[in-house]
Amino acid sequence: MITVWSPDGVGEVRRGDDLATVLLAAAGTDLSDGDVVCVTSKVVSKAEGRVEVGDRAEAIERETARLVARRGPLTVVVNRLGLTMAAAGVDASNVEPGTIVLLPDDPDASARALRAAVAARTRVNVAVVVTDTAGRPWREGQTDIAIGAAGLKVLDDHAGRSDSYGNVLAVTAPAVADEIAGAAELVAGKLGRRPFTVLRGRPDLVLVAGDDGPGASALLREPGSDLFGLGAREAVLAALAAQPAQRSSYGAPVTAPEIAGLLADLLPQSTIDRSGDEVTVDDDDPRALWAAEVASYAHGFEVAADDGRRVRLRPITP
Amino acid sequence: MITVWSPDGVGEVRRGDDLATVLLAAAGTDLSDGDVVCVTSKVVSKAEGRVEVGDRAEAIERETARLVARRGPLTVVVNRLGLTMAAAGVDASNVEPGTIVLLPDDPDASARALRAAVAARTRVNVAVVVTDTAGRPWREGQTDIAIGAAGLKVLDDHAGRSDSYGNVLAVTAPAVADEIAGAAELVAGKLGRRPFTVLRGRPDLVLVAGDDGPGASALLREPGSDLFGLGAREAVLAALAAQPAQRSSYGAPVTAPEIAGLLADLLPQSTIDRSGDEVTVDDDDPRALWAAEVASYAHGFEVAADDGRRVRLRPITP
Repeated sequence: MITVWSPDGVGEVRRGDDLATVLLAAAGTDLSDGDVVCVTSKVVSKAEGRVEVGDRAEAIERETARLVARRGPLTVVVNRLGLTMAAAGVDASNVEPGTIVLLPDDPDASARALRAAVAARTRVNVAVVVTDTAGRPWREGQTDIAIGAAGLKVLDDHAGRSDSYGNVLAVTAPAVADEIAGAAELVAGKLGRRPFTVLRGRPDLVLVAGDDGPGASALLREPGSDLFGLGAREAVLAALAAQPAQRSSYGAPVTAPEIAGLLADLLPQSTIDRSGDEVTVDDDDPRALWAAEVASYAHGFEVAADDGRRVRLRPITP
Repeated sequence: MITVWSPDGVGEVRRGDDLATVLLAAAGTDLSDGDVVCVTSKVVSKAEGRVEVGDRAEAIERETARLVARRGPLTVVVNRLGLTMAAAGVDASNVEPGTIVLLPDDPDASARALRAAVAARTRVNVAVVVTDTAGRPWREGQTDIAIGAAGLKVLDDHAGRSDSYGNVLAVTAPAVADEIAGAAELVAGKLGRRPFTVLRGRPDLVLVAGDDGPGASALLREPGSDLFGLGAREAVLAALAAQPAQRSSYGAPVTAPEIAGLLADLLPQSTIDRSGDEVTVDDDDPRALWAAEVASYAHGFEVAADDGRRVRLRPITP
């Protein structure tokens, strides 16, 4: 059984406030070893002075590392934390009208600091999760996710374990930190002032005192291994822009040596070989293989084989 | 506060077993009005006879409606239920070795049937969620999501509500059904035989008896409104394949009348206008606008403006 509760009566948090003091005033005697304390990124940002009066669009641009997709007013980007989010995670709710909130500077560090302060003052070993609200592809609505964590096994990796039938579970790794963040949202909601939530019942996920674990950044997929690192439209743009100088030769037959030369220019660190009509690209970095593929597509070649380390390209047959 | 528990001692479920009987034997006297009962899709499939000895690849192909992305052994598709999932949701864990499990034929209907049976036998008004495990873009690991639901407000729509500062919350709609599924996964895990989980503490999300609500299919994003409806590579392929006959004219300057003609061929139901160098496409269906954009990109035009109903296209300036 797990129980999840969110203490009432937390007042407004302001720049410089000590979050551990606020948490312990609200929930102090209720905390036990093995609990997971969730705190909204909003209140962490407020305590850390990440609230400002200013232009939201400009803040989004500052927080953006890379555009992922855009349609009308919606902009999805990878932000400087590596999180893929609408509006880079810059928010304007639950703050004074006219102000905006940036995500914490380093949410894993914020989680570590709160965990350490709780341990120092109460000798209770909790894990801490910093939560935020995010949309997702394919499904309506948002769920809360973990953008910072300390002392928590964020992925409950089952690889190599067996189910009760003896089947080895090859790839299952529940993202328990995100599931915990979602459970906290179910309890705390979005309208009240309940920035803290406590989840009890999975002490096996809480690491020993002193071990903060990998943090929530371990939940970020390697950009190059993500099949959805660009929106559909942006992927097309990226492919067609791969080699603008080639645009004028689209109509001419592009030969295997020409593709090999183009890829050698684009990807100087890949190993590129040609054999007859076909070109192969070897690279440890899946981003390089992806770039090779899209650039080749844009110039009349397609993927004949791709094992994640080597891609074999051949002319597209009309 | 919410509490979530998962009854032990559920035996093997076989084709034709009555799920309500199994549930009530395990958790019967513990159920109260306003509880949400989660049941894994696996056990629903077993009861409904969706387990078979057969070829997994062939089953995946049968369950697939549309390929979304592929890399090496990983295939992400939209399945016949509209769910975007690896391997179409066909699974081979927690069943007899050598057998595979297809998703329930209609998980919303399965949820409705279980809810009705519980109500008929116990007069307790619960909601039912059918859960499954899914990966997601951008983030490592999997979370459990709701693929079927009955009697549950699956989205807790805050549109128009105000936060405690008076800011109107414009777009926030927590996908509570998915958060509930995730909370259930935290309790039930993947290794034991605990197919049922009960969540208590959000009776406000449970609809009155007789009202089953929209089901989990309401969580499926409209394909055309999804910026990630295709993997990056597949988007490029789709764009370049938009008009194969045009391939040989890539090199020639593509004029606005030519683009307008191409789009009129591709999208006979859209309104397509040309003014000077620019072409506009009006269509209520965002898929049509998306198709217009990618096809135009592939032929040297780019988007100057897009408000979700009308897109304005102009020549790409080299």
